[in-house]
Amino acid sequence: MKNRGKRVFNFGAGPAMLPVSVLERVTEGLIDFRGLGAGVIEISHRSKPFMDLMDSVQHRFRALTQLPDDYEVLLMPGGARMQFAALAMNFARLKPQAKAKYVVSGSFSQHAATEASKYLHVETISGDPSFKSLPEVREEQIDPACSYVHLTSNNTVYGTTFSTFPATRGVPLVVDATSEILSRPMDFSRFGMIYAGLQKNLGPSGMAVVVVKKDLLGHALAETPSLLDYQRQAADGSLTNTINTFAVFVLDLMLEWLQGEGGVAAVYERNQQKAKLLYDYLDASTFYQPYCDPSCRSLMNVTFHLSDESATELFLAKAEQAGLYALKGYRSVGGIRASIYNPMPLEGVKALVAFMDDFAKNRATGAGVP
Amino acid sequence: MKNRGKRVFNFGAGPAMLPVSVLERVTEGLIDFRGLGAGVIEISHRSKPFMDLMDSVQHRFRALTQLPDDYEVLLMPGGARMQFAALAMNFARLKPQAKAKYVVSGSFSQHAATEASKYLHVETISGDPSFKSLPEVREEQIDPACSYVHLTSNNTVYGTTFSTFPATRGVPLVVDATSEILSRPMDFSRFGMIYAGLQKNLGPSGMAVVVVKKDLLGHALAETPSLLDYQRQAADGSLTNTINTFAVFVLDLMLEWLQGEGGVAAVYERNQQKAKLLYDYLDASTFYQPYCDPSCRSLMNVTFHLSDESATELFLAKAEQAGLYALKGYRSVGGIRASIYNPMPLEGVKALVAFMDDFAKNRATGAGVP
Repeated sequence: MKNRGKRVFNFGAGPAMLPVSVLERVTEGLIDFRGLGAGVIEISHRSKPFMDLMDSVQHRFRALTQLPDDYEVLLMPGGARMQFAALAMNFARLKPQAKAKYVVSGSFSQHAATEASKYLHVETISGDPSFKSLPEVREEQIDPACSYVHLTSNNTVYGTTFSTFPATRGVPLVVDATSEILSRPMDFSRFGMIYAGLQKNLGPSGMAVVVVKKDLLGHALAETPSLLDYQRQAADGSLTNTINTFAVFVLDLMLEWLQGEGGVAAVYERNQQKAKLLYDYLDASTFYQPYCDPSCRSLMNVTFHLSDESATELFLAKAEQAGLYALKGYRSVGGIRASIYNPMPLEGVKALVAFMDDFAKNRATGAGVP
Repeated sequence: MKNRGKRVFNFGAGPAMLPVSVLERVTEGLIDFRGLGAGVIEISHRSKPFMDLMDSVQHRFRALTQLPDDYEVLLMPGGARMQFAALAMNFARLKPQAKAKYVVSGSFSQHAATEASKYLHVETISGDPSFKSLPEVREEQIDPACSYVHLTSNNTVYGTTFSTFPATRGVPLVVDATSEILSRPMDFSRFGMIYAGLQKNLGPSGMAVVVVKKDLLGHALAETPSLLDYQRQAADGSLTNTINTFAVFVLDLMLEWLQGEGGVAAVYERNQQKAKLLYDYLDASTFYQPYCDPSCRSLMNVTFHLSDESATELFLAKAEQAGLYALKGYRSVGGIRASIYNPMPLEGVKALVAFMDDFAKNRATGAGVP
């Protein structure tokens, strides 16, 4: 393959790294998909070979999540953010008062609440304004008249995770799991809906997977665009229009890869190892300072600062030279963010820790500083 | 490359064939984009290399269309069909009466009208119910109180095209050009908005390009999802959320390819040659019957039936054996449809005509019939 250089360890928060074995199969399918003489993005979304892919995604996803039969798996355009509007339009009228409770645990959960307020009355539960810890959600804060409760399970920007989910007094719990879906076992029967953009653990950007309980369908507002109407998309098998066929193809390969790795439980074990390696090093260091409260640390996004913040730019430049890519923290947080989704191998985290240790020692001794 | 077989001539209506030279560059960029050591779908949509791609798409598209400065070029999620809702939400309130005129020239223009009626009062102009010809649009049918007039310029299902556009008494003309964009020179200054899903002439499915006059922005209904608000997307450079980065990458390569082919005027000349070859053959044949009125024949989608319709399945099977793929007509029309978008080479059409002639002669003599 022309121009094919050495692959870096890519710690980007998303769109994020994919296994090279998956990427190589993607490239094969782009020129000649299953011997058709045409690539996968050149064939009809209603052709037999493509419908087989759609079926495969359904089967693999359901197997990996042990999904109960009373849930639909929808593939929707536009990433998770499109669902901020869609879920509100679909669920506002689940109860007559048309109100919802939003747990605000970071930037994206705030965006979700703001977008939803176009369609229903939004009440929020907030906590630490720096988002280093998670707001406490007590059952008595949930009004049973709410149409739903919304929560972002992993906060990509800050690096926090709800390791358990609150009781909601029978109110459907709607969870944005974009940056952690299929990274740890979850009991999907706890959710009214769980959704995720693909671009962290599942594939390319531009599509979301929406897992929704069937008995919540059928209440969409009249002004809901057809493509955002869950009942319509469920009836059409997510093919109300020409779906993003490339994303479906990569998603299927990613799910197959995950099955080959041993499934969610197996990658969860590896994800715990990876995160522990990094957090243990951070906790033992005085040079680096982890950003979040230890009670809610994310396994996917590890955020920290250098004690001497003026060295951050140098850290990032040296890291990139060492083949450790996209470690810059989100603009509202600064510092460093290492996103270590399912495809990041343990050796990538080891390489990062070794680099961090070298960098800290060199700074301490003054060696290697420009 | 493993499994790489002989490429067929792919006459699918969309997702449609792409030049193999483009596909090969796509495969290179998926493993290592511009020497980064990461693929193009693995990097941030806000990174410098990706922002360069976004800029490149803008420059190439504007150059190819000679687009006036008072238009925005937006890249939007969900294909053209998402715009059926979005354009109505953005433009309903351009005039106080909140009504629009829809020219119904086929299935998709009807879908567009139905979707828009969720947001404003829709009046239609219809004609031939078989859609073999186009409805006449007279200037006096346009009420200047309309917010906009909507028209589908090329009807993929039936194979008809508006070669000229009606006068609209100053009412903005909104055109769905999905199946013909950049296949012929157009004066973009005629349109309030012109939009197209990428999956015919421009790239993969899952994204639409929306070209909109700046002075029409800023009137979106309050319930418009942020991602469908043209003013918001224009302000955000189409990056209100994580864009479909793969589609942007392929789009840029397709625009570069089109520039390399000599631009829109050059491919238009080839598109005319391709269509003439096929229509001339159909007109001279008694075995095949073109579907549409000669006054409005599409250069992109050539529809016809076999005089003996019982031979259609055999025709399709033999064509596929001959490396001529996806010629089946749309379900509501039946027969044959040869989609010959920009990437289809002249030799593909020659191969199709040669096959058709052989098939007709064999049927006439009884040779080769099972």
